[in-house]
Amino acid sequence: MMKGLAKSYLSTRAQTEELCKPLEIEDYVVQPIEDVSPPKWHLAHTTWFFENFILKKDKSYKVYDDLFFYLFNSYYEHEGERWKRPERGYLTRPTVKEVYQYRAYVDERMRDLISRLDTEKDTEMINTIELGINHEQQHQELLLTDLKYILCHNPLKPVYSSQKILKSERQIANKGYLSFEGGVHDIGYTGGAFCFDNEKPVNKVRVNDFSIASSPVINKEYIEFIDSGGYNDFRHWLMEGWEWRKANNINAPMYWHKEGTNWYEMTLNGYQKLDLSSPVTHISFYEAEAYATWKNHRLPTEFEWEVAANSLNIDMEECNFLESKTYHPQTAIYENYDSDAVTNFLGNAWEWTGSSYLPYHGYKQAEGALGEYNGKFMINQMVLRGGSCATARDHIRTTYRNFFHADKRWQFTGIRLAKTE
Amino acid sequence: MMKGLAKSYLSTRAQTEELCKPLEIEDYVVQPIEDVSPPKWHLAHTTWFFENFILKKDKSYKVYDDLFFYLFNSYYEHEGERWKRPERGYLTRPTVKEVYQYRAYVDERMRDLISRLDTEKDTEMINTIELGINHEQQHQELLLTDLKYILCHNPLKPVYSSQKILKSERQIANKGYLSFEGGVHDIGYTGGAFCFDNEKPVNKVRVNDFSIASSPVINKEYIEFIDSGGYNDFRHWLMEGWEWRKANNINAPMYWHKEGTNWYEMTLNGYQKLDLSSPVTHISFYEAEAYATWKNHRLPTEFEWEVAANSLNIDMEECNFLESKTYHPQTAIYENYDSDAVTNFLGNAWEWTGSSYLPYHGYKQAEGALGEYNGKFMINQMVLRGGSCATARDHIRTTYRNFFHADKRWQFTGIRLAKTE
Amino acid sequence: MMKGLAKSYLSTRAQTEELCKPLEIEDYVVQPIEDVSPPKWHLAHTTWFFENFILKKDKSYKVYDDLFFYLFNSYYEHEGERWKRPERGYLTRPTVKEVYQYRAYVDERMRDLISRLDTEKDTEMINTIELGINHEQQHQELLLTDLKYILCHNPLKPVYSSQKILKSERQIANKGYLSFEGGVHDIGYTGGAFCFDNEKPVNKVRVNDFSIASSPVINKEYIEFIDSGGYNDFRHWLMEGWEWRKANNINAPMYWHKEGTNWYEMTLNGYQKLDLSSPVTHISFYEAEAYATWKNHRLPTEFEWEVAANSLNIDMEECNFLESKTYHPQTAIYENYDSDAVTNFLGNAWEWTGSSYLPYHGYKQAEGALGEYNGKFMINQMVLRGGSCATARDHIRTTYRNFFHADKRWQFTGIRLAKTE
Amino acid sequence: MMKGLAKSYLSTRAQTEELCKPLEIEDYVVQPIEDVSPPKWHLAHTTWFFENFILKKDKSYKVYDDLFFYLFNSYYEHEGERWKRPERGYLTRPTVKEVYQYRAYVDERMRDLISRLDTEKDTEMINTIELGINHEQQHQELLLTDLKYILCHNPLKPVYSSQKILKSERQIANKGYLSFEGGVHDIGYTGGAFCFDNEKPVNKVRVNDFSIASSPVINKEYIEFIDSGGYNDFRHWLMEGWEWRKANNINAPMYWHKEGTNWYEMTLNGYQKLDLSSPVTHISFYEAEAYATWKNHRLPTEFEWEVAANSLNIDMEECNFLESKTYHPQTAIYENYDSDAVTNFLGNAWEWTGSSYLPYHGYKQAEGALGEYNGKFMINQMVLRGGSCATARDHIRTTYRNFFHADKRWQFTGIRLAKTE
Repeated sequence: MMKGLAKSYLSTRAQTEELCKPLEIEDYVVQPIEDVSPPKWHLAHTTWFFENFILKKDKSYKVYDDLFFYLFNSYYEHEGERWKRPERGYLTRPTVKEVYQYRAYVDERMRDLISRLDTEKDTEMINTIELGINHEQQHQELLLTDLKYILCHNPLKPVYSSQKILKSERQIANKGYLSFEGGVHDIGYTGGAFCFDNEKPVNKVRVNDFSIASSPVINKEYIEFIDSGGYNDFRHWLMEGWEWRKANNINAPMYWHKEGTNWYEMTLNGYQKLDLSSPVTHISFYEAEAYATWKNHRLPTEFEWEVAANSLNIDMEECNFLESKTYHPQTAIYENYDSDAVTNFLGNAWEWTGSSYLPYHGYKQAEGALGEYNGKFMINQMVLRGGSCATARDHIRTTYRNFFHADKRWQFTGIRLAKTE
Repeated sequence: MMKGLAKSYLSTRAQTEELCKPLEIEDYVVQPIEDVSPPKWHLAHTTWFFENFILKKDKSYKVYDDLFFYLFNSYYEHEGERWKRPERGYLTRPTVKEVYQYRAYVDERMRDLISRLDTEKDTEMINTIELGINHEQQHQELLLTDLKYILCHNPLKPVYSSQKILKSERQIANKGYLSFEGGVHDIGYTGGAFCFDNEKPVNKVRVNDFSIASSPVINKEYIEFIDSGGYNDFRHWLMEGWEWRKANNINAPMYWHKEGTNWYEMTLNGYQKLDLSSPVTHISFYEAEAYATWKNHRLPTEFEWEVAANSLNIDMEECNFLESKTYHPQTAIYENYDSDAVTNFLGNAWEWTGSSYLPYHGYKQAEGALGEYNGKFMINQMVLRGGSCATARDHIRTTYRNFFHADKRWQFTGIRLAKTE
Repeated sequence: MMKGLAKSYLSTRAQTEELCKPLEIEDYVVQPIEDVSPPKWHLAHTTWFFENFILKKDKSYKVYDDLFFYLFNSYYEHEGERWKRPERGYLTRPTVKEVYQYRAYVDERMRDLISRLDTEKDTEMINTIELGINHEQQHQELLLTDLKYILCHNPLKPVYSSQKILKSERQIANKGYLSFEGGVHDIGYTGGAFCFDNEKPVNKVRVNDFSIASSPVINKEYIEFIDSGGYNDFRHWLMEGWEWRKANNINAPMYWHKEGTNWYEMTLNGYQKLDLSSPVTHISFYEAEAYATWKNHRLPTEFEWEVAANSLNIDMEECNFLESKTYHPQTAIYENYDSDAVTNFLGNAWEWTGSSYLPYHGYKQAEGALGEYNGKFMINQMVLRGGSCATARDHIRTTYRNFFHADKRWQFTGIRLAKTE
Repeated sequence: MMKGLAKSYLSTRAQTEELCKPLEIEDYVVQPIEDVSPPKWHLAHTTWFFENFILKKDKSYKVYDDLFFYLFNSYYEHEGERWKRPERGYLTRPTVKEVYQYRAYVDERMRDLISRLDTEKDTEMINTIELGINHEQQHQELLLTDLKYILCHNPLKPVYSSQKILKSERQIANKGYLSFEGGVHDIGYTGGAFCFDNEKPVNKVRVNDFSIASSPVINKEYIEFIDSGGYNDFRHWLMEGWEWRKANNINAPMYWHKEGTNWYEMTLNGYQKLDLSSPVTHISFYEAEAYATWKNHRLPTEFEWEVAANSLNIDMEECNFLESKTYHPQTAIYENYDSDAVTNFLGNAWEWTGSSYLPYHGYKQAEGALGEYNGKFMINQMVLRGGSCATARDHIRTTYRNFFHADKRWQFTGIRLAKTE
């Protein structure tokens, strides 16, 4: 088991650094909006997590740099004062090189510590390391979407990866709507492996009759919404969404550009003509909700989504995850793909649900700093399900609850429609 | 029936004006924060509602003043451009006198119209008039809480009513916690009278085992939270609540003042020593949630609240509503009160629930302007249940869903605790 | 002398109340922008000035209401904490009636006190009373321009005065430019009557050769600037002015409205077709400066202005001041006016100069609260000269220095051009 | 002459790059406040200046990258749309390396062009090149102060230069006050070499009797102001300054830190104990003015300053300029310094004057983009005189007019007192 943990630790840490290979030093440093942290910060903060929550428990451990505890704490009030979040992009030091040295220092000590762990006695520490690994996977996704924000708002149109977006001659296997009868279901993680505390406790939830689309909304469909004037008709929008749209002059998904009658988009793979059959992405909850309303449909609740996803036999290998290195939602991830795979609920783009991010019945925040991991965010955010092309394959589950504010669009977010029957 | 409607219309309109009797002309005009509309505006807007949605349907109707459609539309996009909400307090004209003339003009024509209605043929119009009456009742509550904001932030401490807060020697009949077993319940309005669209359709919802307090949190208990440092300990707070608290320097409910070791509060009945046995009020969701967390309890979901309230036999006459003219939550509303009554779930103060304001399964927004009444607000707000001392007695129900943003405290809001068993 | 002082005091106090005669109670209360104080506040603050700086010096004086010292102090740090300026419009109490009672109370005691003053021994108090009278005259002007802001931004277009703007068949006597040779001049007030401390000490200032227009820019001329695209051509503007213009979407003077090809303006005399021969008014320094640049001219310095004004023989009776009751800059103030009069430098509209508001050589702020009257504002404001149609006739002088920030336009402000020869 | 120009061009360009030698790549990229541009941006913008205003005039010139015209235009409206100033720190590309390549490309073509210039025929181009050189010198100063802001707000306390601040055992030669009699002086640049347009035309200005300190205020003196409560006594402050101080919680010059009873400061030479005999620096106009008021003195006008400076025989070699490589104001710049030198008016720190930045009598903005260089900023800024330790020695003159808003403190700014006699 400890070999497994060590391997998992090291491969996750290596994966993070692998993702940074195409970066210039300059790309590591800036923070164009508060949501977007500098890549350098992600490298250091994930390291801080292990140093702070694991290594520091050992009193003989020699701290790398006391100031790093102040600089790289994200939001843990239990851990004391910290550098202000909106000012992460003002710190030119430590340099990128120094951050990699910090990583190496911590990795060496973590490797050593893991080799000495006892499966029986060190349960809590093992659990925290697993949490740290999952934490780093979350930051891999953020690193990629933050980097996308940085590169794709630059008029010089830098390219992160030369990987092309695969187009398939076969359309997505749209089987229309999957229907479910009302009933009481167990919601939440029932397996024995790692999951986040917000997926528990398992609860009985009644879901009423509903149908859910077998495939996500694609660009072609979303353009119909735009072309029909959907962005300019208040009737489709929540009031807050409508005000948000006007205040920010929103007329299309983030990264879209219209040239003449054609749509283009900035991607991590460069500036490209929009692939009409790919799932739409980089939209806010407000836009997802307005699209659904315009269609006379709605977004699924997170419970409906989970019931539907659990009913399917999803082939993880055929889903578009981080390991596919596509860095963009797309119809196919292999030249000869199985058309059923892409109808699956996992990968490509997170799907906005109509559910607010609230605790499950019986949820209890853990004591101490790690209790701050999820619980304190359970207000004014909406749940997203399913993972994306930037999510590590072994990080996602059908019970996984992601959450963002309704106006956020820099993540790989998309739409799956539902209907009340 | 039409006689009933006419009576209901006229008494509601009269009630609104009755509430304004103690006002000086100056009190009608100002808007200290965006949430708080000038009393004059409430008088005109509720009139606009009848003129716009009822009288104007008759083409022979002579509009009172075209500009009033622009000035007194609140948020109905279907009705076109409107005076900006944050600038309602800049309009010194029409004068208060002119607004009352406007009311009289519309009332005369409404009385005439109602007398000519046919129960069979004019169902839609009758429904809209009922909606208009309920709408005006909602604005009575807002008028009172807005006026409270205006008067009670004035250092001269003006008094609206000389009514005293009744104190009872008997404590509130705190029976502790009422326990309920898990099961599936019908949620939503099942009666045959008026209800808002957001209380429908009736749905099957599974509620898990829970307990709910028989009485709301009282000032004495809330002071314990303050005295134990609850406002300064991040562990009890959602992150947004904690940031809100710091940014706004919140250390006690709105209107509370500490003199030496004693707490006082500004009320519509003047500046008074805090009654320790009265329900706490004028707190945000953030404070309610923090209090519950500090107590190792939680807020009930709106479904739990409804299940519990429906299980009780509430005597509406003994609840503290607008008609009691207390204008403040309090233990007793009559000198010889029945101690059981005050444990009831209705009246006194709205109770924050842990539920986000979202549509019920199958909810569909109506076409046209009236569809904007509730549906477009279903994002980033929390549900409150039960009505308050400023709610008209025949306006409230156990299925009634009120909603405010988590930081709002100028309404009569309070706390009822729940537990997961 | 004391009779003169008493008369001056009482007539000034009466004049203020006379100006309020056309107001509705509602008009007294609101504050649509921070610059615009509620008329009620002006009534109380000018009274506070006498109570605080005169009456309170007598220990036997019985203060009217202690809280009024807090509520009606404007900006005197020496006088302690005060109600926040942006929140003056939130105070519905004291009522208008109570404010008039406050005025009557203070007036009675002031009248009594003045009758007992000794010209020899009470110099300081007499000086302060004179300052208080001049202070109240300044607030008469502000009361009128603040009221104008309140009424003239109301879509119902309320009318303050039914006085018409007089149009003359004779054009303004535009004698072109008055030329002056360079030389050293005494600048500042040399007379023996009252003046403000910022007009002193008298100083030798060298003024270089210059010409100054004999009459102000009129609406017809200003429309040429608009029609030639002056508002949309950055070349005429200071950078701050250009950013201000874009941010606030400024395309014409405040209160102007275009209907078809005609310009109208809201005035205290109602909504009127723009009189083309009247001086342009309600423009910011940025606009004045841009107009001058567009014309290949410039604004005069305050020293040039003073030198020119001092060289003229101005008939105060023919200038358009507050006593004319026109409440608007205009060509003629009498049906048979002397065309030379209107070329005069006093009355009609304040004239923006190209000078920053800075202390004269040797200026020294007085000790104590009254030292705060002028000195602490000497930064980032521009000097205006000449008074306006809202200035009391005996309040203005050629050495009088008014000052506002470069973006302010709610005062009666105008343009007189100058040239460097 | 062209050899001189070429040499001047090349040495200035080399100087800029020399200043960047100690930087890490990361240091080049960020913009912590709008005032502070990324060092990379300075490198590119100064290059853009030559490419845009010189090279592009030659139609055969091959533009380096069209987008650079958009990215590196600072504020020239004549040159069209440009990347927004507050977002300069979001551009990770072009990389630092690419910016240096851009510099090399332009330098090669500039060198070639200069060698072909004809002193007679190419006057305008030669003048523009000289302007470009002076422009780059201004940006050298900004580069250094911007870099200081970046490094010296970093808790890791990075060091730019290991140069120590020299302390001298001899005090600054404080000769007290130099007195001048009133009279008319020629103000402005009368020499034949380069100067900025804002130093012209030469004008006769009357200066009244005044005295001016022979040496600037030093840290020891400024600490007395702090220790006497100067920051907390409103009486010393302009109202805007007082509000600024409260809003920004200002209690000492920028970069000062108090440890126990000792003051330290962050400098480009690292974190150091404050040298008490060095001139105070990094203060706003508000602080300079408050200090002078506290001392019962005042700041000199820019005319007084110029008259005084012109009366002295300043040895430029003994002044502390950029070439001294001290990067900080200090008593001595050589181990054996001449104590008179440091009383000189040039170098060390810019001296705030009491004069607003306004055009000289007869000033006329040039046509076209270069007219935007100075003229459009002549509003709401204060003049500073004398240059600093970050100013190139051949860039400064006694007639040189620098200008900043009253709240700016990130430049090397200081205080020299004056008195009215």
